[in-house]
Amino acid sequence: MDTSLFTANNIWMMICIALVFIMHLGFSFLEIGLTRAKNTINILFKNIIIIIIGLLTYTLIGFSIMYPGEAFEGSWIGFKSFGLLLPENGLTAAYAKGQYTYWTEFLFQAMFAATAATIVSGAVAERIKLGSFIIFSLLYVGLIYPIVGMWKWGGGFLETLGFYDFAGSTIVHSVGGWAALMAVILLGARIGKFKNGVSGVIPGHNLPLATAGVLLLWFGWFGFNGGSVLSAAPGATSLVLVTTCLSAAAGGLGAFIVSFIKYKENDLSMVLNGILGGLVAITAGADQMGVLDAIIIGSIGGILIVFAVSWLDRLKLDDPVGAISVHLICGIWGTLAVGIFGALAGIDQFLHQVYGILIIGAFCCATSFGILFALKKTTGIRVSKKEEVEGLDIHEHGMQAYGDFRLNDH
Amino acid sequence: MDTSLFTANNIWMMICIALVFIMHLGFSFLEIGLTRAKNTINILFKNIIIIIIGLLTYTLIGFSIMYPGEAFEGSWIGFKSFGLLLPENGLTAAYAKGQYTYWTEFLFQAMFAATAATIVSGAVAERIKLGSFIIFSLLYVGLIYPIVGMWKWGGGFLETLGFYDFAGSTIVHSVGGWAALMAVILLGARIGKFKNGVSGVIPGHNLPLATAGVLLLWFGWFGFNGGSVLSAAPGATSLVLVTTCLSAAAGGLGAFIVSFIKYKENDLSMVLNGILGGLVAITAGADQMGVLDAIIIGSIGGILIVFAVSWLDRLKLDDPVGAISVHLICGIWGTLAVGIFGALAGIDQFLHQVYGILIIGAFCCATSFGILFALKKTTGIRVSKKEEVEGLDIHEHGMQAYGDFRLNDH
Amino acid sequence: MDTSLFTANNIWMMICIALVFIMHLGFSFLEIGLTRAKNTINILFKNIIIIIIGLLTYTLIGFSIMYPGEAFEGSWIGFKSFGLLLPENGLTAAYAKGQYTYWTEFLFQAMFAATAATIVSGAVAERIKLGSFIIFSLLYVGLIYPIVGMWKWGGGFLETLGFYDFAGSTIVHSVGGWAALMAVILLGARIGKFKNGVSGVIPGHNLPLATAGVLLLWFGWFGFNGGSVLSAAPGATSLVLVTTCLSAAAGGLGAFIVSFIKYKENDLSMVLNGILGGLVAITAGADQMGVLDAIIIGSIGGILIVFAVSWLDRLKLDDPVGAISVHLICGIWGTLAVGIFGALAGIDQFLHQVYGILIIGAFCCATSFGILFALKKTTGIRVSKKEEVEGLDIHEHGMQAYGDFRLNDH
Repeated sequence: MDTSLFTANNIWMMICIALVFIMHLGFSFLEIGLTRAKNTINILFKNIIIIIIGLLTYTLIGFSIMYPGEAFEGSWIGFKSFGLLLPENGLTAAYAKGQYTYWTEFLFQAMFAATAATIVSGAVAERIKLGSFIIFSLLYVGLIYPIVGMWKWGGGFLETLGFYDFAGSTIVHSVGGWAALMAVILLGARIGKFKNGVSGVIPGHNLPLATAGVLLLWFGWFGFNGGSVLSAAPGATSLVLVTTCLSAAAGGLGAFIVSFIKYKENDLSMVLNGILGGLVAITAGADQMGVLDAIIIGSIGGILIVFAVSWLDRLKLDDPVGAISVHLICGIWGTLAVGIFGALAGIDQFLHQVYGILIIGAFCCATSFGILFALKKTTGIRVSKKEEVEGLDIHEHGMQAYGDFRLNDH
Repeated sequence: MDTSLFTANNIWMMICIALVFIMHLGFSFLEIGLTRAKNTINILFKNIIIIIIGLLTYTLIGFSIMYPGEAFEGSWIGFKSFGLLLPENGLTAAYAKGQYTYWTEFLFQAMFAATAATIVSGAVAERIKLGSFIIFSLLYVGLIYPIVGMWKWGGGFLETLGFYDFAGSTIVHSVGGWAALMAVILLGARIGKFKNGVSGVIPGHNLPLATAGVLLLWFGWFGFNGGSVLSAAPGATSLVLVTTCLSAAAGGLGAFIVSFIKYKENDLSMVLNGILGGLVAITAGADQMGVLDAIIIGSIGGILIVFAVSWLDRLKLDDPVGAISVHLICGIWGTLAVGIFGALAGIDQFLHQVYGILIIGAFCCATSFGILFALKKTTGIRVSKKEEVEGLDIHEHGMQAYGDFRLNDH
Repeated sequence: MDTSLFTANNIWMMICIALVFIMHLGFSFLEIGLTRAKNTINILFKNIIIIIIGLLTYTLIGFSIMYPGEAFEGSWIGFKSFGLLLPENGLTAAYAKGQYTYWTEFLFQAMFAATAATIVSGAVAERIKLGSFIIFSLLYVGLIYPIVGMWKWGGGFLETLGFYDFAGSTIVHSVGGWAALMAVILLGARIGKFKNGVSGVIPGHNLPLATAGVLLLWFGWFGFNGGSVLSAAPGATSLVLVTTCLSAAAGGLGAFIVSFIKYKENDLSMVLNGILGGLVAITAGADQMGVLDAIIIGSIGGILIVFAVSWLDRLKLDDPVGAISVHLICGIWGTLAVGIFGALAGIDQFLHQVYGILIIGAFCCATSFGILFALKKTTGIRVSKKEEVEGLDIHEHGMQAYGDFRLNDH
């Protein structure tokens, strides 16, 4: 292997790690921006703890579960060893494929791991008990995510069957999205969201930060999708950046136009979620699509957001930040799109995609429902009415996010 | 061509794309920070839409207009084809010059395209009609910017004539700056800016975000100028980063000292705009300057900001964020500086620079005035007095940026 | 030297420069977030001026003092020449070691230089006179930091003696931390911090920005530690990123658990400072540690934060953002840890580390105390009581950070 090329590939992957890391700031800003000031510290706390949990559980067991090695090819579950191997300078023969070191691979995958729980965090915002959320995250990030990841990226049975998911429309985003859906069902809506059967809007308190969150997520997606090439191969990586950016732009445009037609309003949060919908949707096939494919996939993703938000409202499912619409609905759409557009399009591939979506969906629903239901029956998952009304920041953290500002009561 | 070097060059360009992208967050933060809370969502909305418009129009026609190919060398206008070519993995012979792929080139240029309209966005903030601004941006980003860009970077007549503009003091920043000037003239000042002929200060509502905006823009300029080398050539790229950073620092220092002498105040927004002035000024010749040149060019840029802001006030031109001072005045200064300092200095080069500035200025003024005047006479370009006083957020978007905070009335 | 590898190495270093640069946004956000709204512009102003001072003084003399060349090997002080050398394209024989250009080295080091003063900025927030702080920073960044840096990284006597400090737990963080301690002693506590001998909490006004600051600092640390490898060597750089991230996560976890046990509260600012403590602690030996070492070093760093904050309170030392706990205490801990864990562990190394800490501590305390004491006796270092109560923004800058928001009086 050429040292220069190995070095270049590894540089690209390390940059992508940093970019995926900063997505956590994007998620944090988005979630607090779209919710109320009184729950801000709680949301920030959850997001910070999730990064910690993600990195440490992935070190302890996650990486071993997700990449158990050739012995478990085609299987449902596997395990290598506790902790990380300690190869000489990270340059074991097995990992020096000329793409990146053992350490680079570990850290790139560890950064992904935390994302799934972060998605849930947004959907359950403003009412979940902190302790229960931490326990749920430990189990979901430490066990469930790496098991599902192994099925495809770790060489498990879905890889063998031909299911395709380039960077995780299903394996990351839907995995988070299904758990978000289960959590929203089990938790119930925030007080005041549905009055007399009518869905009200609980407006976000900081739209500049929400917008910044989306731009930081887009920025991070350069690494999320660009790094999923697993090398710096010039043609593949640069194509992925183009399809990613065009799908994001098309998602924003789609959501803008449809929400304007539907509601006669220039709705910023809809456009922001439309961009995210475009990003999630292209993620499964970013390396397989042409320019027009990417624009169509993104537009449909953005349009889906507008409808999904209103469907969920009608179903009385309260998702404060639109996480289910973005990550689950567009995650499913993007995964199906691999069978409809681009290099892999075909009925066989489409059926592989459906199969992968269903099996992963069933597993994620069952496990997340199980964990959350057990927590509900034991420690409880929802804060008291008083805590919810007065704000989680005061009750769970004894602090206010904006101590010097006068706030409206609500 | 060496695969490793090609890969390394392409990595650098992809990073620069990401850095230029995040400048849009910088612009957004700067613009909202220096204006009033009641127009925040409107500004964020414009900035988000501009990214979308920039990417999609550049895909459809912009890239083809700006880089029409050798057949149009030395001409005023050209066109290749609608949409993007679809080379095998982006690696056509024509683009595999060993620097970057077709996709990388497209995306780097597309990210630049949106910038011109963003500059206008700041100058027209707090009073322009959203729909008219979107139409203007579509035409300006989709047509005018790529035409001007073609004159120099696409091999057009200014390239043939010897005009030099490394990364766009004129071709990006002045192109935005001239349109900002025309727009400010046609729109008129915000209500309350000039009372009884005296210029008042309408203070910004979020200086932390304004400061963050400038630091993010500086961060993004690593890619804006660093990527304009069009490869990762170590000597050239690292020199460009040094001249860019020193000019930015000198611009901040110049504005600090002069504004302190002139107003006896430690004026944060002046220092921030001084940094931006230094960045814009070095952009035309960042690859041609030595350390001392960069410091002098930046200092003068920063000093110019302080005077330009007060000149514009005296001319009753209301530019809420200082966009004209930063992008037009310092853009012109930086372009002239190429003929005064550094490797290209000389009377001939200076005259080439003057010629380029004048011809581009004339074209941009004529076209932007034309578009905006036509809009003024048809759809109108300014919101109603009631909307302006109550805020564009409520009227154009039906939302508030900071729903939970108590705001002052004004 | 292989051009491709040289290019790749130089790319990595340029990226790290950008990442270290954006740490200044991280510091700014953290410092304003943890202090009061009325002093926000003052803090932002200081942070911006420090970047300017850092870059320009390092250009003028700092780089020459810190890297005086082989003639000064093993010495206490040296000097090369005013300003920067101007090698042909930055590619002098001396610097073309195949790692990076002269310009890259200069800019990477210049970005580090500003950090030391920024650390002080947080500790003295809300009461220091702006002019005096600027004079202090000029001297501390322009002279003291490069002298200490030369002792180790410039080939001075500590390098000869075997002291090890990979990326600056001592040479950057403690250098700032000692000065912060001296400044806090000389300045005294903010009005209202210690009432009737009891330490009160003066809460921060913007926890979202404080959190963003920590995430941006972590993001920047990819470059701070990753770039300190001084090449893109795949094994070494990727290991450094892993140890850095795991130590940060462990620091956050340690602070979370201990502060929960100690105070029965989910204290966000403690977890944030715990993460920073983990980052500072790993910095001295990030390239020498294994996975478990990094986790232990980080956990202890995070735990130390919780105790250090309460020790300082008991000593009536008022450090509004926890800079002394983070940068001095964890800087010392991390430097000692090099002699306890990892590849260099041993009693001899431990004693080298103690010696380095003591000698640098003595020098930094003496010089920073000297400068600040001289300023105290001449220009004064503390604002008037009236200014402190009404806020530095109005008095030193004639502006408010949040003009449109209604604030609480305090």
